[in-house]
Amino acid sequence: MISNFEYKNFCILVAEEAGKFVMNYFDKDFEVFSKDTKNNLVTEVDKGCQELIKNKISNRFPDHSIIGEEDGDSSLSNISEFTWVIDPIDGTTNFANGLPNFSISIGLLKNSEPIAGSIWIPWPNENRCLIFSTAKDEGSWIDNRKIDINNPQFSLGEGAISSYSSFSPIFGNKSRKIKPMNIRLRGDKRVIGSVAYEMAMLTKGVISFALLGPAFIWDFGAGLLLIKEAGGVVLELDNNYEPKSEFTSFLNTNYQKDEETFEKLKNWTGKFIAGNPDIMKLNNHEKFV
Amino acid sequence: MISNFEYKNFCILVAEEAGKFVMNYFDKDFEVFSKDTKNNLVTEVDKGCQELIKNKISNRFPDHSIIGEEDGDSSLSNISEFTWVIDPIDGTTNFANGLPNFSISIGLLKNSEPIAGSIWIPWPNENRCLIFSTAKDEGSWIDNRKIDINNPQFSLGEGAISSYSSFSPIFGNKSRKIKPMNIRLRGDKRVIGSVAYEMAMLTKGVISFALLGPAFIWDFGAGLLLIKEAGGVVLELDNNYEPKSEFTSFLNTNYQKDEETFEKLKNWTGKFIAGNPDIMKLNNHEKFV
Repeated sequence: MISNFEYKNFCILVAEEAGKFVMNYFDKDFEVFSKDTKNNLVTEVDKGCQELIKNKISNRFPDHSIIGEEDGDSSLSNISEFTWVIDPIDGTTNFANGLPNFSISIGLLKNSEPIAGSIWIPWPNENRCLIFSTAKDEGSWIDNRKIDINNPQFSLGEGAISSYSSFSPIFGNKSRKIKPMNIRLRGDKRVIGSVAYEMAMLTKGVISFALLGPAFIWDFGAGLLLIKEAGGVVLELDNNYEPKSEFTSFLNTNYQKDEETFEKLKNWTGKFIAGNPDIMKLNNHEKFV
Repeated sequence: MISNFEYKNFCILVAEEAGKFVMNYFDKDFEVFSKDTKNNLVTEVDKGCQELIKNKISNRFPDHSIIGEEDGDSSLSNISEFTWVIDPIDGTTNFANGLPNFSISIGLLKNSEPIAGSIWIPWPNENRCLIFSTAKDEGSWIDNRKIDINNPQFSLGEGAISSYSSFSPIFGNKSRKIKPMNIRLRGDKRVIGSVAYEMAMLTKGVISFALLGPAFIWDFGAGLLLIKEAGGVVLELDNNYEPKSEFTSFLNTNYQKDEETFEKLKNWTGKFIAGNPDIMKLNNHEKFV
């Protein structure tokens, strides 16, 4: 039997290769397609990167299920208790326009609960990237360094950063009605445009609080476990943006190895707030923390 | 007499050294201070970087005036028709928390009108940075490549990015009253947290439209000329966020070489919208473009 730790190491290796593939294209010319809606781009790089990741996974774990952002309706892979959820480029609009805030997210679920994953992001260092990784009950790492969200590299207090999705109600007049929005009085607001990138930054202590999503299972598959295993708190929000429960798995009913359940995972969307335990308490979420 | 082009080359050399200095600290430990207000941080790195830049300038141009973000009330340098406006780290909150979206901005004004400048930003390439530079009537460059905002590397149309300050009214209920805000229906919104970084990205074609500021002269000293010299349009906004004129200089009255004028420059604040001519026309600003 393969341990979560070993799955995590596999996720790192795949992220490394996928990152190299993507960086061959970043800031260069490539084909851009528009997906179904406005501002929902997909590029040849998303497609190529997803192929690369899927091939690596199915060579090593031929029985596992795979859900990728760029699947469309075409793919119906095996149905297994193990499901890989991959976003070959999270933040494609940033990538396609040339903004270096995007990510590659690779997560592994067992019965709809994340057990391992990695997030690759570009970074202005010698490697040109950071690789975040996580294994359930084992912890979270940046490259080879284990991380603890409660012992951040810096503790800035009032100079903290909070981040939001460009789809979130902070941009509309509805914001005042929405309770988690009282956090917007704390810290400097950012809209980065890649939810997996935000979760990586939250795990690193760069961002102190985030309103994540609404987004899909391939966006969240690695990052939520990454935050939790680093000691952070992740609360799922209901439709009124009220915290409903601490996150553990994507489907709260018993996981069934059938097509209907697989379709549920594929179509799953959700939103979360996340941060270190202190900031979550300050924000009146004590009962969940 | 020194040409604008030669001033620009000097700005590049200083930006290169300042960038190296800052990258010795990025993502490492350093002292953080809080300035006057919440979320207005300053670090030992801002201070050291400003010293480095000021020394380079006063060694080469001992008669020129210098205005730096970190001056406080202490500094009253020479009063000259040439004034350097420098922001040693624009986006200090990002830098201090460890988010690689910040910049170093060095601008030179002659009689309050920008004539040369450079913006350094971190980047996930081999040099770990890009250096943008500009000289009045000569053009704008990224590293050694001359750039034209009307021939962007990519032209994404509907998948474009627009950017906003975290202080801008897009975050409040006032947004609907404010005319330029109708642009928020176009493109994917970002809040990056460094106005000089945004202006660099706009010049590169990464961002298609930006609502810049409110911010200070050291934030805008290099970037507004950078955009204009790349073929972009920069409109100054009045207090109601209505475009009032195309930007040419920071003081529209005749520039006087006296202390009062120098103080005006030091205390100047403003806000702008900027983009390529096409997107500015679409946004009903034809009469200015």
